[in-house]
Amino acid sequence: MWGKRDDMIVHEEEPFNAEPRPAALAGQPLTPTEAFYSRNHGPSPDLDPATWRLRIDGLVDRELVLSLCELQQRFALRTEVVTLGCAGNRRAELLAVRPIPGQVPWGPATISTAAWTGVSLADVLAEAGPGAGAAHVAFTAPDVSPSVVPPQPYGGSISLPKACSGEVLLAWGMNGAPLPRIHGGPVRVVVPGYIGARSVKWVQRISVQAQPSENYFQAEDYRLLPPDAEPGPGRGISLGPLAMTSGILCPDDDDAGARLPAGPTDVIGYAFAAEGRTIVRVDVSLDGGGTWNQAAVDDPPSPWAWQLWHTTLDLPVGPAEITARAWDDTGATQPEFPASLWNPAGYDNNSWARVRVDVG
Amino acid sequence: MWGKRDDMIVHEEEPFNAEPRPAALAGQPLTPTEAFYSRNHGPSPDLDPATWRLRIDGLVDRELVLSLCELQQRFALRTEVVTLGCAGNRRAELLAVRPIPGQVPWGPATISTAAWTGVSLADVLAEAGPGAGAAHVAFTAPDVSPSVVPPQPYGGSISLPKACSGEVLLAWGMNGAPLPRIHGGPVRVVVPGYIGARSVKWVQRISVQAQPSENYFQAEDYRLLPPDAEPGPGRGISLGPLAMTSGILCPDDDDAGARLPAGPTDVIGYAFAAEGRTIVRVDVSLDGGGTWNQAAVDDPPSPWAWQLWHTTLDLPVGPAEITARAWDDTGATQPEFPASLWNPAGYDNNSWARVRVDVG
Repeated sequence: MWGKRDDMIVHEEEPFNAEPRPAALAGQPLTPTEAFYSRNHGPSPDLDPATWRLRIDGLVDRELVLSLCELQQRFALRTEVVTLGCAGNRRAELLAVRPIPGQVPWGPATISTAAWTGVSLADVLAEAGPGAGAAHVAFTAPDVSPSVVPPQPYGGSISLPKACSGEVLLAWGMNGAPLPRIHGGPVRVVVPGYIGARSVKWVQRISVQAQPSENYFQAEDYRLLPPDAEPGPGRGISLGPLAMTSGILCPDDDDAGARLPAGPTDVIGYAFAAEGRTIVRVDVSLDGGGTWNQAAVDDPPSPWAWQLWHTTLDLPVGPAEITARAWDDTGATQPEFPASLWNPAGYDNNSWARVRVDVG
Repeated sequence: MWGKRDDMIVHEEEPFNAEPRPAALAGQPLTPTEAFYSRNHGPSPDLDPATWRLRIDGLVDRELVLSLCELQQRFALRTEVVTLGCAGNRRAELLAVRPIPGQVPWGPATISTAAWTGVSLADVLAEAGPGAGAAHVAFTAPDVSPSVVPPQPYGGSISLPKACSGEVLLAWGMNGAPLPRIHGGPVRVVVPGYIGARSVKWVQRISVQAQPSENYFQAEDYRLLPPDAEPGPGRGISLGPLAMTSGILCPDDDDAGARLPAGPTDVIGYAFAAEGRTIVRVDVSLDGGGTWNQAAVDDPPSPWAWQLWHTTLDLPVGPAEITARAWDDTGATQPEFPASLWNPAGYDNNSWARVRVDVG
């Protein structure tokens, strides 16, 4: 069930949970669809686009039931480049600090970027007309998670202002092709800037409501708890917007086995700023942060996407640790160690990025 | 020239640079005017409100010259609760890591909150009409900094979108009274969410321009540099929005001399989220982060203000270090150590807040 297949590291076959090898992401602003990470809580539903329907209900003036054809014809087409990142990205480093039972040991590549095509959720909501008391927009999908007791379909919610902000999409296209089933086809939600968990795949129902979704994955999972806390409904910080983070894609830890030649070596990575922020500097170090080189940082391919960076380091013979940290335009940077960020479900590890390699 | 006066710690008399004793800020959402920190680069100008004029020029359709009376009568009155924080807040902890010559050794109280009354800069700019190519709004004041070679008056700029966002004020009132001279009277700029340096005091000229201000305090000072970089025009990250930070106000390091009684002790502090964020958790520790208590965190008194927090810790006899760190709604927290944040001018120290006290 656990293994490596082509460019993907498959952590679980059922539900399918896989991330690309870091090198598969290196230097590409848009991630090829076949290398885009896939995080699931249940089997992928097999929905027929011809019979798929989207229901919009709850605190609305007009309930809507839309076919894919109606969704495509009644609302303005929109394509956006958006980075999705799993809240559990880089959990493996937290697991090395203290066990986190029952969670996928994600590496640093549970983050990917695609061009998503669909319509703005705001336009669809405007037609339904959110009514008095509307404050949240909940999404429900048919994929049933067997790990929740009792088993329940996947769901989540975002605030009404975010849902009406225009950038949230109902997408049926990915990188210029129909949205593959594994990525939520025929239609998924894409919530730019938020943890991937809110970009609900295979969406079938959108409910406008006064409170956040009571679905397990909103009310209990995907919450950041203090280290000594017990998970429970409503406890902890409900994760929405992603925190600033970064990762080293090349070389990666895998190269340790292969042994790198000494000398000038390209170091390539990504950095992702929180919503409304920009990455303005990335530092890279060979001595654990004693001294730093500044990498070249690319502009983001869109306001909702990561920024790639690269530099060249002169690697000496022997074991080496490469460290990176990003800075945003508030002058904030990442915490140094994963140990201080450890939390019971292993979310939001945004400590300095590190890879260990063997040189010579 | 250096000393302590009532509730203020005066770092310099001329230019006047003073912060309150931390305890003077504790538990008060709004800082009393007499305890509000004061950061200056030159002598305070003595401007007569009757003859003061504000000139709006540059890339505008209509140049304006406004008296205080015209400013007050032609635009809608607006009062906002706004926290101002110095980019050098908590520099003392960086100084303990490595010297930072020529900079004020600010403690954790170079941050204060007031209700500011004035008019929206956006309204004034709308009357002037920003023209083609307008991208930045520069402020100039008459206070001459003798430390810059050659000496030059103080200035700075913000982006046009921020200037037109509505929340930026031209303020003549502070906490319900006329703006005192030491805080920029008759009129200052108040830029919510940004480092205090952009909230230019004694403002006399507002220029709409294509580029940021070329003033020393924009082009060269108030920039975050890598540890080994030399300051120079245009180098480093030009600081605008403030990074998330926190401070412990009570007890403070001063209480070390006084010796605290053992037993349950109120610990009070502030946390300030970056623009567009909210503080959702504050952890407090007596063992350097080995275990954490969660403090009670108040709602901010406005979207542009800090959040106060408090908890009770059972202090054992002996020397103790109290540590605090804030978390925002992206699940991001503060870096652990000031050493990793050291930079040549000593800005943006937002590492975990710490005070050392003697108990028993």
